Amino acid sequence: MIIVLKPSTPPERIALFEDRLRSNYHVKVNRWDGVHSTVLGLIGDTHTVDIEYIDAQDIVESVKRVQEPYKKANRKFHPENTVVKISDNVSIGDGSLCVMAGPCSVESEEQIVEIARSVKKSGAAMLRGGAFKPRTSPYAFQGLKSEGLDLLKLARKETGLPIVTEIMRTEHIDMFENVDVIQVGARNMQNFDLLRELGKTKKPILLKRGLSATIEEWLMSAEYIMAGGNDNVILCERGIRTYETYTRNTLDIAAIPIVKKLSHLPVVVDPSHASGKSWLVEPLAMAAVAAGADGLIIEVHNDPQHALSDGAQSLTPKQFEQVAGRIFALKESMK
Amino acid sequence: MIIVLKPSTPPERIALFEDRLRSNYHVKVNRWDGVHSTVLGLIGDTHTVDIEYIDAQDIVESVKRVQEPYKKANRKFHPENTVVKISDNVSIGDGSLCVMAGPCSVESEEQIVEIARSVKKSGAAMLRGGAFKPRTSPYAFQGLKSEGLDLLKLARKETGLPIVTEIMRTEHIDMFENVDVIQVGARNMQNFDLLRELGKTKKPILLKRGLSATIEEWLMSAEYIMAGGNDNVILCERGIRTYETYTRNTLDIAAIPIVKKLSHLPVVVDPSHASGKSWLVEPLAMAAVAAGADGLIIEVHNDPQHALSDGAQSLTPKQFEQVAGRIFALKESMK
Amino acid sequence: MIIVLKPSTPPERIALFEDRLRSNYHVKVNRWDGVHSTVLGLIGDTHTVDIEYIDAQDIVESVKRVQEPYKKANRKFHPENTVVKISDNVSIGDGSLCVMAGPCSVESEEQIVEIARSVKKSGAAMLRGGAFKPRTSPYAFQGLKSEGLDLLKLARKETGLPIVTEIMRTEHIDMFENVDVIQVGARNMQNFDLLRELGKTKKPILLKRGLSATIEEWLMSAEYIMAGGNDNVILCERGIRTYETYTRNTLDIAAIPIVKKLSHLPVVVDPSHASGKSWLVEPLAMAAVAAGADGLIIEVHNDPQHALSDGAQSLTPKQFEQVAGRIFALKESMK
Amino acid sequence: MIIVLKPSTPPERIALFEDRLRSNYHVKVNRWDGVHSTVLGLIGDTHTVDIEYIDAQDIVESVKRVQEPYKKANRKFHPENTVVKISDNVSIGDGSLCVMAGPCSVESEEQIVEIARSVKKSGAAMLRGGAFKPRTSPYAFQGLKSEGLDLLKLARKETGLPIVTEIMRTEHIDMFENVDVIQVGARNMQNFDLLRELGKTKKPILLKRGLSATIEEWLMSAEYIMAGGNDNVILCERGIRTYETYTRNTLDIAAIPIVKKLSHLPVVVDPSHASGKSWLVEPLAMAAVAAGADGLIIEVHNDPQHALSDGAQSLTPKQFEQVAGRIFALKESMK
Repeated sequence: MIIVLKPSTPPERIALFEDRLRSNYHVKVNRWDGVHSTVLGLIGDTHTVDIEYIDAQDIVESVKRVQEPYKKANRKFHPENTVVKISDNVSIGDGSLCVMAGPCSVESEEQIVEIARSVKKSGAAMLRGGAFKPRTSPYAFQGLKSEGLDLLKLARKETGLPIVTEIMRTEHIDMFENVDVIQVGARNMQNFDLLRELGKTKKPILLKRGLSATIEEWLMSAEYIMAGGNDNVILCERGIRTYETYTRNTLDIAAIPIVKKLSHLPVVVDPSHASGKSWLVEPLAMAAVAAGADGLIIEVHNDPQHALSDGAQSLTPKQFEQVAGRIFALKESMK
Repeated sequence: MIIVLKPSTPPERIALFEDRLRSNYHVKVNRWDGVHSTVLGLIGDTHTVDIEYIDAQDIVESVKRVQEPYKKANRKFHPENTVVKISDNVSIGDGSLCVMAGPCSVESEEQIVEIARSVKKSGAAMLRGGAFKPRTSPYAFQGLKSEGLDLLKLARKETGLPIVTEIMRTEHIDMFENVDVIQVGARNMQNFDLLRELGKTKKPILLKRGLSATIEEWLMSAEYIMAGGNDNVILCERGIRTYETYTRNTLDIAAIPIVKKLSHLPVVVDPSHASGKSWLVEPLAMAAVAAGADGLIIEVHNDPQHALSDGAQSLTPKQFEQVAGRIFALKESMK
Repeated sequence: MIIVLKPSTPPERIALFEDRLRSNYHVKVNRWDGVHSTVLGLIGDTHTVDIEYIDAQDIVESVKRVQEPYKKANRKFHPENTVVKISDNVSIGDGSLCVMAGPCSVESEEQIVEIARSVKKSGAAMLRGGAFKPRTSPYAFQGLKSEGLDLLKLARKETGLPIVTEIMRTEHIDMFENVDVIQVGARNMQNFDLLRELGKTKKPILLKRGLSATIEEWLMSAEYIMAGGNDNVILCERGIRTYETYTRNTLDIAAIPIVKKLSHLPVVVDPSHASGKSWLVEPLAMAAVAAGADGLIIEVHNDPQHALSDGAQSLTPKQFEQVAGRIFALKESMK
Repeated sequence: MIIVLKPSTPPERIALFEDRLRSNYHVKVNRWDGVHSTVLGLIGDTHTVDIEYIDAQDIVESVKRVQEPYKKANRKFHPENTVVKISDNVSIGDGSLCVMAGPCSVESEEQIVEIARSVKKSGAAMLRGGAFKPRTSPYAFQGLKSEGLDLLKLARKETGLPIVTEIMRTEHIDMFENVDVIQVGARNMQNFDLLRELGKTKKPILLKRGLSATIEEWLMSAEYIMAGGNDNVILCERGIRTYETYTRNTLDIAAIPIVKKLSHLPVVVDPSHASGKSWLVEPLAMAAVAAGADGLIIEVHNDPQHALSDGAQSLTPKQFEQVAGRIFALKESMK
């Protein structure tokens, strides 16, 4: 950590501050005096140093981290890729391409079982589906809730596909006991209490990137879960908010190689939410695979025009079959 | 609501779609045929029409709302300003300038009582202070929690100032029973379960704008609370995320007059979080008052350099006295 | 074009406005009356209707285009892909992958010829290199200027590679007479005078997307060039400005399929500027090809550590050879 | 300047690099070795050090400036406010509030003279009006050009108001000889050739902030003009591009106090372009004055509904009179 002090700070204030840094954080402090400013360098383990405390000092002009503020999610301290095991034959991060597919919302037994069967046939390894739905409007359909969870489990029983579904509050963690992967939605990426509680479980967590979260903040949210002892975190890039209005979000394709460099955690991409338009799912899915994603999560609905939510971005099972064909072929060609 | 159909949609598909709109939503449907496209107009009460359902139809090119999607928060249906009564002598939205001040985090009895006394002397009408703190890092100080709430109540007893403090999960609502105003933080603005539960109380809610929330999304979150029957919502602009890196956030000063036009709810500004720098608090507070804000929420700490969080943006009580002097003088001059 | 009028506009004002629309723009006007507002629909060729004029009327609440505001760049009026012919054996937009490579700045004969030879060997079809350099700081190296152009032509003579280089002012158009493709940089995307003058030439123009330009604004800038009679426009996505600070820009990968849908013009991607980091060039180039780009423009420098500008994002010739191998293999596999 | 080296860089490479820094830039180099990385600090005048050169080195992890990259625009080297003298009785930056008003586009003698007279009566010190108009669409009205300049001069003769108008290309500098203040539009803020040529004149330049320019980039563009010897630069904040779509741009109100701290140049605000809506001009103008702006530039049109451009954001002369009354009263009360 590098601390630039304000010009003309009295030497005795600097000395005092150096002492405080040493005793508070057990770090070594180096100092050098420039023409206009003095700079301090903290040497040692600084990931627990509170950067806001430093920044609050009246003699401090600016602070810059050299080490990342996350440790357990950091590839520097864990060079090998993390492989998250979902079931006996499904893992994420092992070099294969893990495709999760299914409807935005679970709507009925018939719907979810039919979609599950069809996406399985096209090569999907997992079934996605929303039971609790975060909706911008209080007047919109909010999901089938616990009934939706039951239908997902039923579809799992029928097809053998592990299921991934979104949690919205800490009180529901017990209810998600029998879910294979628990999803934390973009709007809850910094619901720190929820993250902390999920850290106490051993469940694989699919952590979506927040609408305007930096990559560092996203990894810090992963760190929250891991700090509690749960290392089974799967990161999910789903598009960020920018000034461009043509698409709902802007897929940050560079986030894939960046996360792979900074962290050992697997990263998957959600091309459906990233674009909000079904005809963009294929090119974005292709791009994600080419850029090195460990998996994809794609919305598929047997009747998008009557879907109870997000139909505009859903593929039909037939369209999904074609997209899946192309992405698995691409993955194969890259070996 | 206006629906633009795709070029060359067959007339029978259009007729079928029109029928469906009429029967699903009890609206009248107007239609006109352009050179390239056909356009449908929905007439009637469309705020419950699910825009995503419409957008999902394969024959639909684009949809545009004419009416806003919020109703209870909408000034069109409630022309007079809402005045939120906090206590016998404190209200927000009545034309006066309501200043809330206090530390980012409650740290000790001595700290909170001393600050409360001093900000009261400078004209603050309410005491702010965090007991539960949302922090980006799991390793940072997370607040004194229930002990912090007790200390706030103690400071209220000493000074008579009503208190405002942040809630982080639905399970805590009972614990906040005796708090005067419950704050929903920016990161929880779309924690819809929390909003819904708060809608069941009658407590005044200070709803911070999300880091990258549009004004419409912010008002939709207010609508969540109000849909449950709680009309005591105070909106708080606290800066949005942009590409500019000099400040932590960019204060969207235009949000004040815009919210006043679109909604009847009172709006306050947080110049401390908007800038992240104590020397910017005064000019931003002045700008907020000049633009018509109903109140301000300002961080004050008796010892910013030892503050356990966000010290860099805190004023000392002495600095706050000066800022308060200037903003009340400005407010006075605008009468 | 759809025009929503303000609630309670007097019928005679509406009638007057309808008349004016008809006579000014030779369009038909449809009208329907909602519960709260009246809506007018303009039918006919509206791409020359001045949306700002409409928006300025005191009786107008909002305006929405149904047709795009660009015509010559619009795929609706030109369904086949445009193929821009650069030289006897180089074209862009014909289904092949056109790779342009070379240094950010031309520095010396030795440098540019050596790089040209090496990128040609690796499969590049064109040589890029800056002679006039837009630099944020007036104290930074601004390019070799006309001498740089001469060196590029010399390298072209040595290798046969057509050259692409950036123009910065209208007075230089004559000087660029003998350049194969003229680049308009991101910062000049809305230098409308420059665009208009380039429209009077027949030169292929590589039009970079502005730092925060929407896709529509980008296509409108292409329209400026095309309105003058020059249809040889190649669009170049080079990353947009967002809140994320890890990379210099955020590559908007979805822009590729979107531009291909909205327009018939070819689109290439600049993974070097999009990321600003050489290790990100390969994954972003792969993603661009997978998403359907017609070409790539990549920075290559024989000595990035001594490059006079933008060295951090340059590949060495050896690195470029590897990247080129992977992207051509990917392109091949997608046939 | 602080340079963080990559972990495990060999000591001999570091020594070599240090030597090169010393000899290239005539700076002293300090070094300290952390647990994971080595950090170098450059001491001396570093504003001409090419940060991209440093960043390009393969042994460099990251670079951070301690000094700002601009010098002539920097308050550190010029502590007193710059006062730009426009005419015998008009100056900007002297503590008064300089209001420039007039139409977006000059349209006719009658129009410009009538508006000039009326805004003068309301207290405007200068007349604004566009003769050359940057328009997104090639089909929109592009201004009266040189005829517009003549009409502005005529209005100046009639009223005595100095005139400010926008330049779009270097070839026009001679034509602007007799203009009082030359405006550089947001889209040309990084048209470096134009900036450089304007630096060779002694004309006051109104430099608008680019649509997505950082404050540092904006000051670097001022530096371009000043590096040529022209110190008469007036900065103009006109809103930045963000994700929010309700307004055309987001006024960055904090930019005013920030620019005043970082630079000695005067700063004015354009509330008309910042919002794009006439009813927002007053609250934004009030906020700008309260935040410390040296002036305002406001669009006024005698017939906004027939304005040839940007009518939606124009005030009528009568509305301007009211707004002017309120902002001068506010300015007065702040003394």
